[in-house]
Amino acid sequence: MEAEKYRKGSFTLPGEAGYEGLTLKLAEKWGADVIRDSDGTKLSSEIVDAGYRIYSTICIIREHNAFALAHPETQQQTFLISERVLAESSTVVIPLLDGYFTEQFEVNSSEESIKYWQVYDRTTEKEIPREKWSYANGKVTVEDITPWHHYTVSFLCWRVWEEINMYNHTTNHWTSEHLRQLDPRHPLAWEYLKEWLNNWCVDNPQTNVIRLTSLFYNFVWIFGADMRCRNRFTDWASYDFTVSPAALDAFRDEYGYALSAEDFIHQGKLQVTHMPPSKAKVDYMDFIQRFVALKAKELVEIIHKHGKEAYVFYDDSWVGMEPYGKYFPTVGFDGLIKCVFSGFECRLCSGANVPVHELRFHPYLFPVGLGGLPTFMEGGHPEKDAMDYWHHVRRALMRQCVDRIGLGGYLHLTEEFPEFVDTIEQMGIEFRKLKELHEHGAPLTLPCTVTVLHSWGALRSWTLSGHFHETYMHPLIHINEALSGLPVEVRFVSFEDVRKHGIGNTDVVINAGHMGDSWSGGEAWKDDALVTELTKFVHRGGIFIGVGEPSAVKGYATLFRMADVLGVDKDLGERVCHGKWTFEEKEVDGITVCRDALAQDKQIYLTDGKACVLAAANGIPQMTIHSFGKGFGVYLSDFKVSANSTRMLLQILTLGMQNKEEIKYISDSPYVDVAYFEDERTLVAASVASEKVATKIQTDQGIIELVMEPHEMKICRL
Amino acid sequence: MEAEKYRKGSFTLPGEAGYEGLTLKLAEKWGADVIRDSDGTKLSSEIVDAGYRIYSTICIIREHNAFALAHPETQQQTFLISERVLAESSTVVIPLLDGYFTEQFEVNSSEESIKYWQVYDRTTEKEIPREKWSYANGKVTVEDITPWHHYTVSFLCWRVWEEINMYNHTTNHWTSEHLRQLDPRHPLAWEYLKEWLNNWCVDNPQTNVIRLTSLFYNFVWIFGADMRCRNRFTDWASYDFTVSPAALDAFRDEYGYALSAEDFIHQGKLQVTHMPPSKAKVDYMDFIQRFVALKAKELVEIIHKHGKEAYVFYDDSWVGMEPYGKYFPTVGFDGLIKCVFSGFECRLCSGANVPVHELRFHPYLFPVGLGGLPTFMEGGHPEKDAMDYWHHVRRALMRQCVDRIGLGGYLHLTEEFPEFVDTIEQMGIEFRKLKELHEHGAPLTLPCTVTVLHSWGALRSWTLSGHFHETYMHPLIHINEALSGLPVEVRFVSFEDVRKHGIGNTDVVINAGHMGDSWSGGEAWKDDALVTELTKFVHRGGIFIGVGEPSAVKGYATLFRMADVLGVDKDLGERVCHGKWTFEEKEVDGITVCRDALAQDKQIYLTDGKACVLAAANGIPQMTIHSFGKGFGVYLSDFKVSANSTRMLLQILTLGMQNKEEIKYISDSPYVDVAYFEDERTLVAASVASEKVATKIQTDQGIIELVMEPHEMKICRL
Repeated sequence: MEAEKYRKGSFTLPGEAGYEGLTLKLAEKWGADVIRDSDGTKLSSEIVDAGYRIYSTICIIREHNAFALAHPETQQQTFLISERVLAESSTVVIPLLDGYFTEQFEVNSSEESIKYWQVYDRTTEKEIPREKWSYANGKVTVEDITPWHHYTVSFLCWRVWEEINMYNHTTNHWTSEHLRQLDPRHPLAWEYLKEWLNNWCVDNPQTNVIRLTSLFYNFVWIFGADMRCRNRFTDWASYDFTVSPAALDAFRDEYGYALSAEDFIHQGKLQVTHMPPSKAKVDYMDFIQRFVALKAKELVEIIHKHGKEAYVFYDDSWVGMEPYGKYFPTVGFDGLIKCVFSGFECRLCSGANVPVHELRFHPYLFPVGLGGLPTFMEGGHPEKDAMDYWHHVRRALMRQCVDRIGLGGYLHLTEEFPEFVDTIEQMGIEFRKLKELHEHGAPLTLPCTVTVLHSWGALRSWTLSGHFHETYMHPLIHINEALSGLPVEVRFVSFEDVRKHGIGNTDVVINAGHMGDSWSGGEAWKDDALVTELTKFVHRGGIFIGVGEPSAVKGYATLFRMADVLGVDKDLGERVCHGKWTFEEKEVDGITVCRDALAQDKQIYLTDGKACVLAAANGIPQMTIHSFGKGFGVYLSDFKVSANSTRMLLQILTLGMQNKEEIKYISDSPYVDVAYFEDERTLVAASVASEKVATKIQTDQGIIELVMEPHEMKICRL
Repeated sequence: MEAEKYRKGSFTLPGEAGYEGLTLKLAEKWGADVIRDSDGTKLSSEIVDAGYRIYSTICIIREHNAFALAHPETQQQTFLISERVLAESSTVVIPLLDGYFTEQFEVNSSEESIKYWQVYDRTTEKEIPREKWSYANGKVTVEDITPWHHYTVSFLCWRVWEEINMYNHTTNHWTSEHLRQLDPRHPLAWEYLKEWLNNWCVDNPQTNVIRLTSLFYNFVWIFGADMRCRNRFTDWASYDFTVSPAALDAFRDEYGYALSAEDFIHQGKLQVTHMPPSKAKVDYMDFIQRFVALKAKELVEIIHKHGKEAYVFYDDSWVGMEPYGKYFPTVGFDGLIKCVFSGFECRLCSGANVPVHELRFHPYLFPVGLGGLPTFMEGGHPEKDAMDYWHHVRRALMRQCVDRIGLGGYLHLTEEFPEFVDTIEQMGIEFRKLKELHEHGAPLTLPCTVTVLHSWGALRSWTLSGHFHETYMHPLIHINEALSGLPVEVRFVSFEDVRKHGIGNTDVVINAGHMGDSWSGGEAWKDDALVTELTKFVHRGGIFIGVGEPSAVKGYATLFRMADVLGVDKDLGERVCHGKWTFEEKEVDGITVCRDALAQDKQIYLTDGKACVLAAANGIPQMTIHSFGKGFGVYLSDFKVSANSTRMLLQILTLGMQNKEEIKYISDSPYVDVAYFEDERTLVAASVASEKVATKIQTDQGIIELVMEPHEMKICRL
């Protein structure tokens, strides 16, 4: 039996009206100190009065349908682009909403909206002058144009179904009224919302913490009419749903230049977070972030006035309130709650500048989970899912802890899954033990600072945009996940940061992405000073790790701007007549190659033949180490996270450490993560293996040998 | 026993001194009417006087070592680029020839050479002013530069080993003197060469045909010092070996602008034929083509003056004399000889504007063949190689015949390979039968004209640059090989042709290549008029076949400019957040999908969901047909030539034919090619299958049923 102190506290339970007994029983079993409601649920007084602190969930812009219908002009909007229509003569008629889900969108054909519309000849990418087109009945007619070109209209429309509600309806077959959403930029809506929140606080004196889900603007989620392409577009970090004629006017007044529809539509590609932002987008994001922070601050002040605390859930309507954004600390939130599948999400939460950090674990207590797979229903294994996520998260908690954990959803669904109930109990105990250790000081870190370099820098620390399963195709999320549990310092730096301040005090720089994307950097690599700075950094002893298509940009002798440092480059066809260096795979002392992590890129070649090839596929280098001055350039054609690839990454990170004796408190098994809390002389080892693992750990007190049960966490006082 | 007329004539035999008996025996067996010498061989009088016509091989610029050593300034040159050298301070020293094979190159450090040299900062891609660098002892020292940048020198050097001789030495372990080569642009060399040729003609009255191998400038072939990268660069159609200060000066005087080293070096990538040419390259090629044609004409006139004929071998030193070039017909050659592995090479020869077309078959009578594999030595199977090539070539000969065939090399090597000797005899008989049929009129062609659209147009008809095995990575060579034996009209058109004249009268347009290469077209697709012309062409009933990355260029809404016509596009990451259309594979009547011909491209997506997917891989479309107006856009992610893929291509080509009854004289087996000679009412069927094949052929006289033995050719009078 674990000590009582590990059995209670720091746990947020989702209560459920109608299941009061269950709620209180599980609150006891899981050691909850807080009970919350969830989207679409309401706690009963038996729960509220049971002596727990109470969180109440509020999605501030939603559930005001009466107001929205009375004042439709206060609803949120977005730009959309019509289908591309071929002109078979000098006139073309373009239906605007064809292909879109008309339960989500309605054309905003008001005068202030139409002034922002644009008609484009997409064959020439030239805008058609306003006098050549007119709108009527959902269609734009364009005249006096070149036949056999394709044309589009970019237009504003109302978003008449709040997207999370729309998702829940369409996924979980909800039949309730479609909820609408208000734009806080509209003065009428804003006054209404503040008053509504004030009244809510008055009406709910028992609530201790208002859990905002989240703020105002949802990530971009565009549905299509055809079930063959229902999901037309999803970007968890795009700002397109913040737009309105009022926002555009305000931006123009402040910045002295106007944004056009094309700044958002971008030839129909939209402004994807995975691509480097334009100058206009950077400005617009700052503009929105300030607006969101100012408005959020007003809400927090209302909440505080009523003696309640304001926690914010970082998902759904979170656009503009990135926890590592410039204005986030100015809001005055009392807590940040992050739902987590992965270690990087834990680090994202634990590192944010806010008093309380809380994780909401998965699975959500819902019948179906990711991709519509069964969770709390027949065929589901929620206990297994929970443990899988926990093992990812636990590694990260060992590095940097949070203050609280919890769950969300419908509690009654757990009744059929007693193993899940036991699993959560054990998770709570492990969490509280880790938390206690962190309270006495941070764990030991290797003398190794790792800089992750991409277009967004700190703003997109740890995450790319959304969860792992949404961004798995980007090598950087794998790198971030691996890093989240490694005993190194990690910082996220933008190209702009390097331009202003140099690469700074770091041992390793990682650039991981596909050519032209935000993570590789695209045009940013046209900055000669950046290349020079990093070349010098490596020559003087640094390590540059390039993954996928690092530093790739066209226009230079090599596709990878860091090719001279890496000793490899990628040929897109220009070198088809050049001979390629032959090579033999070689082993490098201290590096255990994890081939499964790598790609089978057919276009990588050795630049000067001097890079050491650790792994090749079909005769093409996939992993190389290249001595460059006193440092190293390391190339990986891809990086897929696993215990073995994470270990390989750690070995690469410490390649440059002169004093190898400093590398201690590392298990000799890649399956066992170790954190050493020096002040307490306590070592935590945690296994991610589903089999028993015997391991040795070098410590200041000599080698410790441990036998770890599957997924076991051990705490050893040295 | 075949009729005597098929047993003799139209055959060129390589004679060999010391093997006179064998020579005359094989001349009889193979039905030769001509005996030739080969590179490095000389015929004896017993052969020369045996009553055969005599070809004598002359490589005009080679085998003048005494003159070259006396006048080293008359030798040929090239630009090279040094290695990229990192500047660790404000001075950097760059050795010029490091990494190059110094038996091939010597620095030309004359004043007129150095004025064309360039030093580049390759980090910034800016030229370093002349006053900052100096040359001495094979090295350039650059001063007052930015540290931590990489620098290169582009310089001129002499080519002191003729490349074909160099290849033969290094491949076949020749030990004779290294042959040098003269530049006909040098007046001293030119006067010498003309006089030499005149004398040669006087000294060799028995020669009927001078077989030029080929003219002046070899394709570019740069050797490296390190055996790990011996072949630094090979481009069978590059003009870099034509360069010299004199050529550059003459160009500047004529064109009014000067070419720089960088026009050739191109950041170290050189000017590859597989990439679209710059304006400067187009000008320079025209300049060289005129020069080559003028000089060649002078040589031909000398040859004619002596009552001899001048045939030119199209390989080796052929640069500037492309048979489909503007100036080729002005030279006055009497014959064109092409060595052939493939059908497309046969069409290249047979379609050229010259009196006599001759094929030199492979294998060459040499101990080793392609890639150093054994041919006429232990482990070799020359009879099998010969038949493999013949089956490719025979298809093409059925469509358009040549006048002569022959062999080259050392005849005595055949002695150990009697099966080879019999095989050649049979090939000769089949060839003469085909030739006879063609003499009575061309075979029937379907009412289908196919336009292959790329950067080079007619200049690179049929070939890309070199043989199939050198260009197999380009889908277009597979397409060309397939087309070489299909009963359709084929024309090769450049983007410039379309700009000037429109797409013209054609049924099908094919664009096949990788993004940015000559065959796809790269920047040429920024021409809106081109896109408009082809869009209209398809909408009105044409077929556009896109293979690989057709019409791909960045900067537009779609990567493929013809995406609206094709119904598919390729996503390079910008659409990672866009939903993709789901689909089911469908069959299309009359199309037999050959999946082996296709790639497994991961980035193709349906644009509007309307294209019919005939084949997918891992859920991604690889072959689609998209109705567009009255026409079709057809997408193939790749095209690898085979009997089945060739048949599939024919089915696509005829997709638009309204009157399907016109599609006749086609075998129902993809392994059997058919040509119908209407005037003779004669049908030729030839099998490429190594098994027996039963097939039916629709003719005007009803269905003919044939049973074809492996590789059999049948001639049927209807």
